[in-house]
Amino acid sequence: MYRSYTCGELRAAYANSDVVLSGWVHKVRDKGFVVWVDLRDRYGITQLVFDQERTEAALLDSARELGRETVIQIKGKVIERASKNPNLPTGDIEVLVSELNILNPSLLPPFTIEDETDGGEDIRMKYRYLDIRRNPVKNNLIFRHQVTMEVRKYLSNEGFIEVETPYLIKSTPEGARDFLVPSRMNEGQFYALPQSPQTFKQLLMVGGMDKYFQIVKCFRDEDLRADRQPEFTQIDCEMAFVEQEDILNTFEGLTKHLLKEIKGVEAGDFPRMTYDEAMCLYGNDKPDIRFGMQFGELNEVAQHKDFNVFNSAELVVGIAVPGGATYTRKEIDKLIDWIKRPQVGAKGMVYVKCNEDGSYKSSVDKFYDQEDLAKWAEVTGAQKGDLICVLSGKTDETRAQLSVLRMELAEQLGLRKPDEFAPLWVIDFPLLELDEETGTYHAMHHPFTSPKPGQLELLEKDPGAVKANAYDLVLNGNEIGGGSIRIHDKEVQATMFKHLGFTPEEAREQFGFLMDAFQYGAPPHGGIAFGLDRLVAILGGQETIRDFIAFPKNNSGRDVMIDAPANIDGEQLKELHLKLDI
Amino acid sequence: MYRSYTCGELRAAYANSDVVLSGWVHKVRDKGFVVWVDLRDRYGITQLVFDQERTEAALLDSARELGRETVIQIKGKVIERASKNPNLPTGDIEVLVSELNILNPSLLPPFTIEDETDGGEDIRMKYRYLDIRRNPVKNNLIFRHQVTMEVRKYLSNEGFIEVETPYLIKSTPEGARDFLVPSRMNEGQFYALPQSPQTFKQLLMVGGMDKYFQIVKCFRDEDLRADRQPEFTQIDCEMAFVEQEDILNTFEGLTKHLLKEIKGVEAGDFPRMTYDEAMCLYGNDKPDIRFGMQFGELNEVAQHKDFNVFNSAELVVGIAVPGGATYTRKEIDKLIDWIKRPQVGAKGMVYVKCNEDGSYKSSVDKFYDQEDLAKWAEVTGAQKGDLICVLSGKTDETRAQLSVLRMELAEQLGLRKPDEFAPLWVIDFPLLELDEETGTYHAMHHPFTSPKPGQLELLEKDPGAVKANAYDLVLNGNEIGGGSIRIHDKEVQATMFKHLGFTPEEAREQFGFLMDAFQYGAPPHGGIAFGLDRLVAILGGQETIRDFIAFPKNNSGRDVMIDAPANIDGEQLKELHLKLDI
Repeated sequence: MYRSYTCGELRAAYANSDVVLSGWVHKVRDKGFVVWVDLRDRYGITQLVFDQERTEAALLDSARELGRETVIQIKGKVIERASKNPNLPTGDIEVLVSELNILNPSLLPPFTIEDETDGGEDIRMKYRYLDIRRNPVKNNLIFRHQVTMEVRKYLSNEGFIEVETPYLIKSTPEGARDFLVPSRMNEGQFYALPQSPQTFKQLLMVGGMDKYFQIVKCFRDEDLRADRQPEFTQIDCEMAFVEQEDILNTFEGLTKHLLKEIKGVEAGDFPRMTYDEAMCLYGNDKPDIRFGMQFGELNEVAQHKDFNVFNSAELVVGIAVPGGATYTRKEIDKLIDWIKRPQVGAKGMVYVKCNEDGSYKSSVDKFYDQEDLAKWAEVTGAQKGDLICVLSGKTDETRAQLSVLRMELAEQLGLRKPDEFAPLWVIDFPLLELDEETGTYHAMHHPFTSPKPGQLELLEKDPGAVKANAYDLVLNGNEIGGGSIRIHDKEVQATMFKHLGFTPEEAREQFGFLMDAFQYGAPPHGGIAFGLDRLVAILGGQETIRDFIAFPKNNSGRDVMIDAPANIDGEQLKELHLKLDI
Repeated sequence: MYRSYTCGELRAAYANSDVVLSGWVHKVRDKGFVVWVDLRDRYGITQLVFDQERTEAALLDSARELGRETVIQIKGKVIERASKNPNLPTGDIEVLVSELNILNPSLLPPFTIEDETDGGEDIRMKYRYLDIRRNPVKNNLIFRHQVTMEVRKYLSNEGFIEVETPYLIKSTPEGARDFLVPSRMNEGQFYALPQSPQTFKQLLMVGGMDKYFQIVKCFRDEDLRADRQPEFTQIDCEMAFVEQEDILNTFEGLTKHLLKEIKGVEAGDFPRMTYDEAMCLYGNDKPDIRFGMQFGELNEVAQHKDFNVFNSAELVVGIAVPGGATYTRKEIDKLIDWIKRPQVGAKGMVYVKCNEDGSYKSSVDKFYDQEDLAKWAEVTGAQKGDLICVLSGKTDETRAQLSVLRMELAEQLGLRKPDEFAPLWVIDFPLLELDEETGTYHAMHHPFTSPKPGQLELLEKDPGAVKANAYDLVLNGNEIGGGSIRIHDKEVQATMFKHLGFTPEEAREQFGFLMDAFQYGAPPHGGIAFGLDRLVAILGGQETIRDFIAFPKNNSGRDVMIDAPANIDGEQLKELHLKLDI
């Protein structure tokens, strides 16, 4: 038996008990006549004491020489501390050690195993097994486990069945790039790793499974933007005999359950906003509504004067920055420089200070009078003391730029509070998205999404105007879930493939099994998928998913700890009927 | 709203309620003046009624024409049945339909959607989404969900944390073959899919995670024996600061919990048997101990006469078949033919009938007298009325053959009762196994398994004799779990790799990260992994795992439903820097 207690559980009530503990040497404080050792395990830290009076000399010497992160086992007696440490759950006691066994020595770790470490990202990832010993990482992984347990508990209680779908499936070049897996037994053929279990969950609905979920790894071979992973985890869900309303209610229930059980937050009913409203009010289909700063469209009140920049713009739009009237010229210039960076791409910014005395001071006073500016304040909701920031240009671009500015300012103003949760549904997404480069339409959600009732005909005339039965669940400015009501009619699905540029042969080749299945009594169905990595990060009050993944990959898709991917031996390649082409 | 109730919940108490139901047309019985339709969903079957008196003519006609598996929605009133059906939970009522909506028609399915279907394995797999509508398959999937929920509940309550380990890892050619995943971003390099999360769970122990589990897909690119799958699911577990005893106790607890919660069986403490005992008594390291028929070794009592077959044999061994004395000559000949098939490979069989009058009649009466045979009966535990079957030859082969015969006879005699559960631990496995072909040793469990204390030295002198801290959990003749205490010392691990034929460079290349990790304070640790597919099948009273997997692959590793693996387009190959070599 390596231990009778963990390092997190001894209290004053255990005084005089004989105990056995195991763990890592966290810290050694050698005061000469007495040596204290902080012994650490997953559950906490317990102070060990060795002293000249009560400890054998040889044992005291051994304690003195203990290196950080050495794994030891000790036997000893719990004693109440003279000076207690109220910051430590075990701070009322210490253990007077009578026996010390070194279970495994340790080299000096390349960074300190503390909450605030001196190790940079790269070194922490290379030695991730040491990084995991640190409380912040360890607690994130435990938190993730708690979230998934609650998800499973809730969905299972609601009658959902977790069904495992296969990982070795078929490549569908449409959408993101697949990871491929060469088949040895089927010469020249390949499996693909799933980007999501989409078609399988739909087949489960055809199979009458009714309420399905799965917490499942998905794979996308994309050039990695910051904070994306080639393998990621989804809470994947599907229901049959449902309309959009049923799905929204069910998964609003799940999200409320998580907020309550995990964060102790009682959330009210989630607001709903159409995609068009969200774009109009926040320039963004995943608005952070923890704070206001809604967009005010100023075309009507800003295009009647000689200011050509506005007059020639498709959209003039502003936001009111709370308390921003006190910004100095220098601060405002910095803001303007920031939004002119290529990453944001604005051409410039007009601003209006709303002074406390009710007057306005703007960067376009040459063109607009106080009455004009008062109207701008009204439209953007600016109060005395606020700063109005106005951008103009093409509608989509300008909204995107102002949205980025809004988020940046909110960040600076501390309005994005990690312990505040503001969920909402964004609904009525467009069915199709125009690819500006190729001039073709592709599915905004995926090719199985159902158009809104009665809009199928619109597909021919005005594809961009067709709305879908598609919805996103947004939390604190992040899309945490997205889904749709699916097509369950073979003919509608065939029409959709046609509009997405599939030849009938291609559709047959890639999705024949699904269209076949639709012929044998497919029920109406729909679903949703949550990005677990992000959901957990946001519930944890953070936004970087990497900190909530045990062994993440870097931006080149590499696992720097195990050094993968790697070269393989020629024999393996040969068995797979492949040659390198480099 | 597609339904107000499911097809499984209406009872007499709902009489006169207006209800909306949706589901599949299971059966139509047209009696002319009345039409009954069985409406089916995941939850059950509800009888719909249409009749001349109460139903509009057009509606009655529509009902008459409903094809099997059509998806419909109906509105109607619950009425109590005149003649109730006690075999159906909803058998007290039927629904008088007032409105019928056809949600989706269905082609005639290629096999009947009944518990006993007319569809063969191949057609069922091709249309697996229809197969899943059948109760036996649907219930197996629901059962699997229940088992995994209970596993998670139990382990989580015991302080285990489920941590997701990566799927895109590094190939380790040792052991079974890996599935490989070419990397697009890292030219000429490959990921591998994990055969198990072994090294990662050990790194989690180094990381202090202490108690880890994961229900996780694993992958092996092997030529598939019957009832093996290229992707399969493990309940993967690891603990730190534990000895073998701690692990056996913890997972005996899990297994008892499952037997109790899932099967209502209160299991006592699990027997333990060494590997050597198991081989001796059952010729098998996964004995089915639901029944006796233990081996009796007969060398001492059978090698003293002129019967050269026995005298020249390394082992003479027999079992007593309960009630077998009544077998006819023809039945015994059939048995002998059966064990002489190449799949079993016995050369022949000697038998002894233990007559009710206390006399013996054997196939070797020429060589052995009644006194000899009485001793055989004593050693094999044969009673009056039993048949003793005796095989001889090389020890390992003969045991294997007699083990197969024992299982076959038990099957024939109905001794392998699916509702009886006989778990046991097999312990003290050999560390290494001799590969007869190459004359080299390889790890019986895996290269990370710790030899028993003090046996490390034996590795040089007599590698085959070294026992490991390795254990299997056996249930009803199937290995449902296996694990070991791991090596946590860098030097011991290096020694082990050397004995397994790795050069230091190869060991470094493949497992350098693990040996590095061992230098930074690796705690003693060990674990176990359960084969979920098999565990669920056995708990479900069956032995074919395919019936408990939603979308299994066939023996060529193909998914015949989606037709994968498949050819990919040349562009994809090019992006991966690969060429076909066929």
